[in-house]
Amino acid sequence: MRTRITNIIMTPGVTNEAHIPFVYDAEILIEDSLIIYAGKRDEAPVFEADQTIDGNGALAMPGLCNMHTHTPMTLLRSIGSDLPLDRWLNEAIWPVEKHLTDDAVRAGTDLGIMEMLRYGTTSFNDMYMRMDMEAEAVRDSGMRALLGHGVVDFDESCSDLLPNIALIEKWNHAADDRIRVALAPHSEGATTQKVMEKIRDAAETYKVPVHVHVSETRLDYEGGIERRGLTPPQYLDKLGLLEYPVLAAHCVWFTDEDIELFARKGAVILHNPVSNLKLASGVAPIAKMLKAGCKVTIGTDGVASNNNLNLWEEIKLMPMLQKGVTLDPTVVSPAQTIAAATSVGAKALGYDNLGLLKPGYLADIILMDLSGAHMAPCNDLESNLVYSAQGSDVVMTMVHGKVLYRNGEFTTLDAKLVTERASKEAALLLERAEKAKNA
Amino acid sequence: MRTRITNIIMTPGVTNEAHIPFVYDAEILIEDSLIIYAGKRDEAPVFEADQTIDGNGALAMPGLCNMHTHTPMTLLRSIGSDLPLDRWLNEAIWPVEKHLTDDAVRAGTDLGIMEMLRYGTTSFNDMYMRMDMEAEAVRDSGMRALLGHGVVDFDESCSDLLPNIALIEKWNHAADDRIRVALAPHSEGATTQKVMEKIRDAAETYKVPVHVHVSETRLDYEGGIERRGLTPPQYLDKLGLLEYPVLAAHCVWFTDEDIELFARKGAVILHNPVSNLKLASGVAPIAKMLKAGCKVTIGTDGVASNNNLNLWEEIKLMPMLQKGVTLDPTVVSPAQTIAAATSVGAKALGYDNLGLLKPGYLADIILMDLSGAHMAPCNDLESNLVYSAQGSDVVMTMVHGKVLYRNGEFTTLDAKLVTERASKEAALLLERAEKAKNA
Repeated sequence: MRTRITNIIMTPGVTNEAHIPFVYDAEILIEDSLIIYAGKRDEAPVFEADQTIDGNGALAMPGLCNMHTHTPMTLLRSIGSDLPLDRWLNEAIWPVEKHLTDDAVRAGTDLGIMEMLRYGTTSFNDMYMRMDMEAEAVRDSGMRALLGHGVVDFDESCSDLLPNIALIEKWNHAADDRIRVALAPHSEGATTQKVMEKIRDAAETYKVPVHVHVSETRLDYEGGIERRGLTPPQYLDKLGLLEYPVLAAHCVWFTDEDIELFARKGAVILHNPVSNLKLASGVAPIAKMLKAGCKVTIGTDGVASNNNLNLWEEIKLMPMLQKGVTLDPTVVSPAQTIAAATSVGAKALGYDNLGLLKPGYLADIILMDLSGAHMAPCNDLESNLVYSAQGSDVVMTMVHGKVLYRNGEFTTLDAKLVTERASKEAALLLERAEKAKNA
Repeated sequence: MRTRITNIIMTPGVTNEAHIPFVYDAEILIEDSLIIYAGKRDEAPVFEADQTIDGNGALAMPGLCNMHTHTPMTLLRSIGSDLPLDRWLNEAIWPVEKHLTDDAVRAGTDLGIMEMLRYGTTSFNDMYMRMDMEAEAVRDSGMRALLGHGVVDFDESCSDLLPNIALIEKWNHAADDRIRVALAPHSEGATTQKVMEKIRDAAETYKVPVHVHVSETRLDYEGGIERRGLTPPQYLDKLGLLEYPVLAAHCVWFTDEDIELFARKGAVILHNPVSNLKLASGVAPIAKMLKAGCKVTIGTDGVASNNNLNLWEEIKLMPMLQKGVTLDPTVVSPAQTIAAATSVGAKALGYDNLGLLKPGYLADIILMDLSGAHMAPCNDLESNLVYSAQGSDVVMTMVHGKVLYRNGEFTTLDAKLVTERASKEAALLLERAEKAKNA
């Protein structure tokens, strides 16, 4: 399939520039899953397209990478909102999650993928349970994802590691390499040293990244010191895990030494500003982390602590929250923010040719409509993009060269059916949990 | 004109309840500008409607009140983003604003009103210059607004007070009482005591509220103490201004005594969380203020420090920011947030029958589509409304009984023309400023 996207403004994305570069009167040429040209229209090579997408002046940019989420938790949207974290987990979330079924996880994943596609997310990094269901949903929807089975281990049985290994063996590089698999120890506090050592060895064996919650709350940080005599990042380092690609979610309670350690080792920070505020975990020191040279990416976290999967909210919140809490409006630029949402995330997912619009790169592309009242006048496009744009400005989402969403329509998902099925599965799930509670 | 809105879920809005009440299978009946029934459909009185609006299951709620903005600043969208506040004002904003014209202010106001209507704002509180142009735009668009001419006075000439008084005499209660006028001293730091005393006297004479910036930045707070020996709220109190309705924008740097004083005097806080973060002013202690019994409302501030007029961003940010910085997820409920965005603001605008959907109240009503993937499943509607909803879910905006926006169409504004004119005026404005700079 040969696709031409024309009549667009384009950004190839951001690597290390201080500003987001834009190309006007641009065109993108795609062959199957790969970009073969992205640049000025009048410099494009001769190309016979099977389909032409008229961008109507929209901005083409790399698709967003939602770098930390628990997609099936869409079913638990708004459950236990505004409760303290311990009560939220113990009374609202965990008692319900115990009653998940394969059908529920599939329905929740389909809904989450649909929501992500609608708001321009083209790949996501997930840790949850019943991951075969998630993998099948990713395969069928055309989405891209890095999936891990959340490993909890309080008794050194290491039994949770088995489904994670099975997931690697079954799904890593599956679906035309749209699916990759990570090892996913839940956190320092929810795992034994024994299972962490096995995970380190598996990272060596399978050459897959390690996705883990790190110092999300003050309790994680203080508990880690109490249990291990080390901060959670220092503990991961002591185990040798930081020699492997580590994707560390949250990183809110970080010392300056933790920041320096992560910068030196290249561990990737998965920043979730909405969730961290909403659950009252705190504000990660992202401005400092960026200054120290850390790799920073962004995620929504699960819907139950957000309460949606619209990454544009994180895109606006990341820079402005850092400005507000440091009292310095110059920290965290639009370019750093868009890099966090695209190229840095894409690399962290393990792809060398993802997150930029360049020849040879995978065609994960979104179109942002620029014609809304909230985007005019266009005095500064990069600032408009980060501070004025809405998720609803996404008018096309393409993954792996295939259009999955365009102008309100999904090509691989039946929106009405998916929404109804998820609502039904959520109701059944809450009913099972309620019945068990009263039993 | 008799209008029936049917096939809806409805909230009458929030007054003092801990939760947002919802009525299912509801209907609203409107005669001209007033609601005559809002409740269960099967209990509605006999009513012959001239027009019937099918809500398709949407949520009807009171329109939003954007309680602090400078609407024509849409023309300066994204100008000087990420600069330190003094450079932002001195280098980016003020040198441009000097070259505003009547045409520019009108074009910018039209664009801002369009953006606000699209995202469900039905009334706004504004302080700017060339206010006749704003008033005409409000009159012609069908919007509702409280308008003030920003009074600056460094030399005791009090000359800026004259256009503010003229505005009151010409426009207060104009356009079927959709327009009201406030006195608008810019701030303690930008006014003399002499003009503040005249403003207090004018508040008595004209029975209009006083709209003023209070302790927005650390410099405002410390400068106030240096200049007056009092915090800005204490200074307003000493002048007797707090005996009149005071609408105080920002209130970021407030002592516990300032909070107690505002609670006791009933001064209204106009909270602008996006702008306060983006300009690195800080985080207002809203959780404390609400606990102390202060009247809290929300606003976007001008577009140049936001960079849009979508109040749903403030609706989500207000509660989650307070949770995040206090590390307490229980502070600031959805009900308090929706009250701040509707009923509390409406009252502060000076109307006794605005901000709730009740018989005898003005028909400022919006419809929120609930069918998006990001709103499913509906486990908790009030939490979905505050944390999951998008501004783009607004499918109808009615002001004073008249539909001004519905399903992408504006009834009183030509979207294409307004956007083009604003873009043209912005370009001309920046050109004039550039020319003057190089002269």
